[in-house]
Amino acid sequence: MYNFKNDYAEGAHPNILERLYRSNFEQHDGYGDDPYTAKAKNVMQEKMQNPNAAIFFVSGGTQANLLVISHLLRPHEAVISANTGHIYANEAGAIEATGHRIIPVDKTDGKLNAEDVTTVLKQFAMRPHVVKPKMVYISNPTELGNIYTQKELADLSKACKENSLYLFLDGARLAHAICAKNSNLTLADISSLTDVFYIGATKNGGLLGEAIVFSDKKTAYEFDYSLKQKGALLAKGRLLGIQFLELFTDDLYLQLADHANKMAGKIAQALKEMGCLFLADSSTNQLFPIISKEVSKKLSTNYSFFTWREMGSNQEAIRLITSWATDEKTVDQFITDYKALTESTKDKA
Amino acid sequence: MYNFKNDYAEGAHPNILERLYRSNFEQHDGYGDDPYTAKAKNVMQEKMQNPNAAIFFVSGGTQANLLVISHLLRPHEAVISANTGHIYANEAGAIEATGHRIIPVDKTDGKLNAEDVTTVLKQFAMRPHVVKPKMVYISNPTELGNIYTQKELADLSKACKENSLYLFLDGARLAHAICAKNSNLTLADISSLTDVFYIGATKNGGLLGEAIVFSDKKTAYEFDYSLKQKGALLAKGRLLGIQFLELFTDDLYLQLADHANKMAGKIAQALKEMGCLFLADSSTNQLFPIISKEVSKKLSTNYSFFTWREMGSNQEAIRLITSWATDEKTVDQFITDYKALTESTKDKA
Amino acid sequence: MYNFKNDYAEGAHPNILERLYRSNFEQHDGYGDDPYTAKAKNVMQEKMQNPNAAIFFVSGGTQANLLVISHLLRPHEAVISANTGHIYANEAGAIEATGHRIIPVDKTDGKLNAEDVTTVLKQFAMRPHVVKPKMVYISNPTELGNIYTQKELADLSKACKENSLYLFLDGARLAHAICAKNSNLTLADISSLTDVFYIGATKNGGLLGEAIVFSDKKTAYEFDYSLKQKGALLAKGRLLGIQFLELFTDDLYLQLADHANKMAGKIAQALKEMGCLFLADSSTNQLFPIISKEVSKKLSTNYSFFTWREMGSNQEAIRLITSWATDEKTVDQFITDYKALTESTKDKA
Amino acid sequence: MYNFKNDYAEGAHPNILERLYRSNFEQHDGYGDDPYTAKAKNVMQEKMQNPNAAIFFVSGGTQANLLVISHLLRPHEAVISANTGHIYANEAGAIEATGHRIIPVDKTDGKLNAEDVTTVLKQFAMRPHVVKPKMVYISNPTELGNIYTQKELADLSKACKENSLYLFLDGARLAHAICAKNSNLTLADISSLTDVFYIGATKNGGLLGEAIVFSDKKTAYEFDYSLKQKGALLAKGRLLGIQFLELFTDDLYLQLADHANKMAGKIAQALKEMGCLFLADSSTNQLFPIISKEVSKKLSTNYSFFTWREMGSNQEAIRLITSWATDEKTVDQFITDYKALTESTKDKA
Repeated sequence: MYNFKNDYAEGAHPNILERLYRSNFEQHDGYGDDPYTAKAKNVMQEKMQNPNAAIFFVSGGTQANLLVISHLLRPHEAVISANTGHIYANEAGAIEATGHRIIPVDKTDGKLNAEDVTTVLKQFAMRPHVVKPKMVYISNPTELGNIYTQKELADLSKACKENSLYLFLDGARLAHAICAKNSNLTLADISSLTDVFYIGATKNGGLLGEAIVFSDKKTAYEFDYSLKQKGALLAKGRLLGIQFLELFTDDLYLQLADHANKMAGKIAQALKEMGCLFLADSSTNQLFPIISKEVSKKLSTNYSFFTWREMGSNQEAIRLITSWATDEKTVDQFITDYKALTESTKDKA
Repeated sequence: MYNFKNDYAEGAHPNILERLYRSNFEQHDGYGDDPYTAKAKNVMQEKMQNPNAAIFFVSGGTQANLLVISHLLRPHEAVISANTGHIYANEAGAIEATGHRIIPVDKTDGKLNAEDVTTVLKQFAMRPHVVKPKMVYISNPTELGNIYTQKELADLSKACKENSLYLFLDGARLAHAICAKNSNLTLADISSLTDVFYIGATKNGGLLGEAIVFSDKKTAYEFDYSLKQKGALLAKGRLLGIQFLELFTDDLYLQLADHANKMAGKIAQALKEMGCLFLADSSTNQLFPIISKEVSKKLSTNYSFFTWREMGSNQEAIRLITSWATDEKTVDQFITDYKALTESTKDKA
Repeated sequence: MYNFKNDYAEGAHPNILERLYRSNFEQHDGYGDDPYTAKAKNVMQEKMQNPNAAIFFVSGGTQANLLVISHLLRPHEAVISANTGHIYANEAGAIEATGHRIIPVDKTDGKLNAEDVTTVLKQFAMRPHVVKPKMVYISNPTELGNIYTQKELADLSKACKENSLYLFLDGARLAHAICAKNSNLTLADISSLTDVFYIGATKNGGLLGEAIVFSDKKTAYEFDYSLKQKGALLAKGRLLGIQFLELFTDDLYLQLADHANKMAGKIAQALKEMGCLFLADSSTNQLFPIISKEVSKKLSTNYSFFTWREMGSNQEAIRLITSWATDEKTVDQFITDYKALTESTKDKA
Repeated sequence: MYNFKNDYAEGAHPNILERLYRSNFEQHDGYGDDPYTAKAKNVMQEKMQNPNAAIFFVSGGTQANLLVISHLLRPHEAVISANTGHIYANEAGAIEATGHRIIPVDKTDGKLNAEDVTTVLKQFAMRPHVVKPKMVYISNPTELGNIYTQKELADLSKACKENSLYLFLDGARLAHAICAKNSNLTLADISSLTDVFYIGATKNGGLLGEAIVFSDKKTAYEFDYSLKQKGALLAKGRLLGIQFLELFTDDLYLQLADHANKMAGKIAQALKEMGCLFLADSSTNQLFPIISKEVSKKLSTNYSFFTWREMGSNQEAIRLITSWATDEKTVDQFITDYKALTESTKDKA
């Protein structure tokens, strides 16, 4: 039984575990005041070509989202998100629990653009009877696996700046977006085009961890207080520092994401060649093929995955996720199995 | 240079790292739905002789505190704490950020008793112009290293039940309290006398982790939502499950705390024999000896520790913390160094 | 210049001012512990045939909404509302500021039904990654002036009960709904079909004031604390008590709403006879006629009103509101003016 | 039976009711966009010689406190208050409900000084494990009836400026402080020495209302959103505007407070002459005489008042409050009755 349900089914990349083991009996100060954390931040600033970036390591994506949003917004301010955005669809009201409205924008592809921003601003003009939109939240890749191009992000960034809105990019799978074959965005681009973003480790080979990056230190003013107040400041901060240091050594984080993307790409290409359609045009490690319910049921004997959406009475979109740990043999076997099932199903029909 | 500043200066007990390594490429469901987490909870229920206990693993103490308090209290309800309590003194307003007043009670020993509870209830009688006290928060051991006896906890528990107050015990160092030579409290006692408590791993050999225990499943109703909402639900829940499973295998968590206590006890006894006084009567791994500033300054060349409080112009209470990883040779060397410094200082005088 | 912009352009019904004057130098206890407040509540319980109702007087609608919702919901629970609902469209994030998500349902007529409820419950099944829907919020009349029939409310109430959801009815203009010529709902019906609702005075002849009614005293448990905590407990509670006593003396509140409805009805009928279409089918004191921009502009020389929505390039829906204080002569003059403007505009064309 | 329990036992000064009556059928825009509100603000700016002041009218003191504090503080910031302060002692956790810690300072006279501020700042230095003190909250007069001198307020203001703390003055009875015979503070002084304060009408002849004054418009940036969000924006804003306009016409608000102070002063002087001691040295309209329980019990047959504190087994401090509406004959009768009771009690002894 192979698990295609998510990219956090295994533990961590061995380099990380080995460094944890090697450094285990060193004594270090707590709360991130250790040399691994310091070195990791330096390396990351270099990679993003931004010595003015302020970097904070936290445990997970929901935590990162609620920290950033509650720290930057004043009580009457709101954040704009696609309706598919993780903060709107999957976080149990984490943002509202800190007092802020999420303004949802219906988007089939999960991506926001400059026009969406100006439309929302017009809808929320009747001050003071409405919240004040003050931030745009996007995910790259989106929850559907597709990505922003450099131009798309630059246009959105411009719209945000013109309207004094923060641009916040959720990068739980950021390395997968950067490595996507149709991506022309670099980490340096992202750092210069957004006010704050994060780079996920949890879904790219870490045990846990997201690195929140404020592109300008000033924006991060007193963020350390928020980390502590929201329960996000780990006593053994080295646990996060060591992971990001390993992931950013020799660009391991990109290698891992690239592998995951390639495994997904191989599946996607094979299924397309067999005539399969997809819910979204993903170039990262999440795929949403539309398959017959019969094939889906039979596949689930050997593979676990989520059914994403019913598509009429006979078909459904399923979600397949590959990861840094996905073996190519498994991918090949899946393709073979899918082909056999599809053909036998057709034969019957 | 040896670090006596805290009990989270090193990594984790090797058993934990080894199990993480061994299980690394197994695929498991996320969010704590893995077999390690399930097994750890079973073992823990057995140890506390309470099959009705509901157990949740989270990352840290502040997170545990804010989760439990915000989940159980209604908006107008407040929590009573000693003024030395971690939630009042050290958590950057984490509880108030969820909307609740902490009612501080001035206590030199950091311990609350039944009389404290009834006194507070009298002070907060002028409904609805005051908050409603609804929970008592205590730490065992306290932030000063001293502990509750079985009778003290039973009396406090009775007062809480009589007044419909939740009793919540912060056990960031709970194993150290249980192992204290003057303790007669068992894990089963704690589970039966409190409504909710937690067992810390971070300060007792884990990489991170606190196990929140609701003594009755009913009290934990829908707590899973709060975990997610506050950003505490780790994708790779196995990371926490594996740690608690290892710590509760062959009572490792007690062995580790016992070692830490013994190392502290050795220092305490030696210093007492040399005439040193202590700020508090600790029987766990935190010591608060009152020493001359001159000796303190000289000690700090080879040992790092916190100055806790000025005591007149020449003396100060310092805080020394030992841990599962403290080597007995270091302890012996510290005692020798302290003795030499004290005597040379006296000679000068 | 006559103001059709809202139903709170004037002061209060003279009976209220007179009673305030007459009672002015009586000394009474504060915070609602006065005989006027007590008597008003008794009369209202009788009118709704519900001696078990718990009634609280507050200053305004947003205050009533945030009090009720934050008092009844636990942190992870959410409230379902039509997207036109006042809490979603007009209250500056008041509900989110207390920590709760509003789940919007797109409705052109502003009314929720049983099917809407079950649809939302299906969408929010993925516990604990989503908020838990726990309350349905409706307005009667809606923000578009239309109303719920007895059957519609009963069906919705049944769906709420079956799914353990609170049903909360915003009655800022409740008397206008009850008095609507096509309404068969009584105050007693509303009290028996909802868990909590309120009766507005601000928009029906009071200086300020909404009467929050919990249909069962148990649901209101400790609501007095919330009143104080949210700044809603007036020192001179008599100010509210006296107003509701006057409004419920000889059914003044129904007489006032009936007058407002009749004035609106007269305008509606006249405009319909002249071929005018309306955005919504209102039977209360809010009208949304669709008129040419040219006529609208000319009308605005003598009458003030809001433009509600652009309807193509030449037309717009405007909002006209009548009140207890609207003079019938003004209504007649408005009809005459509208007729003249419409005809002259047509002549030109 | 005469009520000395508070200064809001009666309705409003007749001038206010008369102006409400006179203006009743005028049509005005809602939410404070009416000419009475505008004119009241102009007059008040002139009285405080501060054309740059931003003024907002709200319903009550708790509402004013929570609005100002939640609007100005960021999530990790806290407000310093005397332990007797209304926000700490009497508001049901209203401030914590908006997410902020109140740091209490034990003061027998209810007054904070520069040294208190620096002491707190030292105690809260261990960033980020503690909240950040960012505001000082004081009341003038205090809850014990005593006042700040011009020098005391200037010194405190200086300490706040030097430490980048907001100074917020609760003036629920501000006119009584200004009129106190030993006061040398003007409204202009208060406006120049604080960042924000409010002037109470509820306890000085209004039906309800507090005027929040930001000494600099910039500090009030977007405060209108908070008013709406917290349910404080009255639809009929004229109700508040008319009251403040009347109170600031011919300095009525000072005349009313002066009368209340004089009535209290007459009682205080008479009791002192009979040897009575007082809990606090009040020069405003609140008195705390320490009297025998026997006399207290007998007095309570004809006068209602609160017992403030037990003072040994035979005595207690009671609270007597006079107001703009207190009749001098009643005061004289009270003195006569007190004298007779005291003497007959002594005779018995």
